Amino acid sequence: MEELKEKILLEGEAISSTVLKVDSFLNHQIDPGFMKRVGEQFAARSKNEQITKILTIESSGISPAVMTGLALNVPVIFARKRKSLTLKDDLYIAKVYSYTKQEMNEIAISHHFLQKDDRVLLIDDFLAHGQALRGLIDIVQQADATFVGAGIVIEKGFQSGGDQLRSEGINVESLAIIESLADGKIRLR
Amino acid sequence: MEELKEKILLEGEAISSTVLKVDSFLNHQIDPGFMKRVGEQFAARSKNEQITKILTIESSGISPAVMTGLALNVPVIFARKRKSLTLKDDLYIAKVYSYTKQEMNEIAISHHFLQKDDRVLLIDDFLAHGQALRGLIDIVQQADATFVGAGIVIEKGFQSGGDQLRSEGINVESLAIIESLADGKIRLR
Repeated sequence: MEELKEKILLEGEAISSTVLKVDSFLNHQIDPGFMKRVGEQFAARSKNEQITKILTIESSGISPAVMTGLALNVPVIFARKRKSLTLKDDLYIAKVYSYTKQEMNEIAISHHFLQKDDRVLLIDDFLAHGQALRGLIDIVQQADATFVGAGIVIEKGFQSGGDQLRSEGINVESLAIIESLADGKIRLR
Repeated sequence: MEELKEKILLEGEAISSTVLKVDSFLNHQIDPGFMKRVGEQFAARSKNEQITKILTIESSGISPAVMTGLALNVPVIFARKRKSLTLKDDLYIAKVYSYTKQEMNEIAISHHFLQKDDRVLLIDDFLAHGQALRGLIDIVQQADATFVGAGIVIEKGFQSGGDQLRSEGINVESLAIIESLADGKIRLR
């Protein structure tokens, strides 16, 4: 997606060889019109897949997921990172290790919102090692629903998650792939 | 907002005298078309206020905030609940006590995204004791920006936050106000 690539090069910052800061439009500030076009991109790429639900993880996945859901006219579920007082039982749970935050999280989805006949598209802001995506796929499988594919806003191509998932036959669509963040410079694939 | 009130009565669940579960359309699953209409409601109510930024808190505030930003064509910033590796310095920070989770959180906004000439609309999913809203107002004031008002999806009218804020002259617009959750029954004001 050209507009996204331009935004990454113009507004992104390589704050280390592995961390890309895109706080101005994805992880802290959001440009809603741009995010709507991101959602329309994901929707266009999966328009023949009869998607019935979109699944993401709080927090930065929510806005691209909701815009994709708007374009496809299907509900969006966001996995919670820990159990809140209103999210108590009947949960599908998966463990997800965050390399960025260096901590293990449990993510949870209520049984009520995923059914056997659901065809699920996963949406997330970043794909690096693929831990979050694997957690979400695990949850789709626990629910006996059909995992159709994943839409990623920015993939870190220099980490192994995306290539590994694709080599397993998993359909991963990334709107931009970062080749390298070495020497403080962002290089796109 | 009639559609919201009907959804609360139809899909909401009073799981205690203070906790309302609306996981089917606001806090876990999101109906994107409905959320777009929520955003349009907030936009209509503040269309003469020359809003330049919308401010919310992760996670459930994000979807109504982004839809309001889409309708008003302005950026949305979501306050982070703790400092991530990509959100390090130059922060406005406020302390927010969550009665639901019974814990103190710090919320943070980067200096880069709030300026003196910004006119800020706050959006959040719930208003109960008003702690989150006060934290966000504190941050707007730290930035010397103009706090215009707050748009709330669901206000718990039986808790004191909304009435107290209004008695201080603060403009709070709630799309639905819960009068009581006593005896497992949802009563709207």
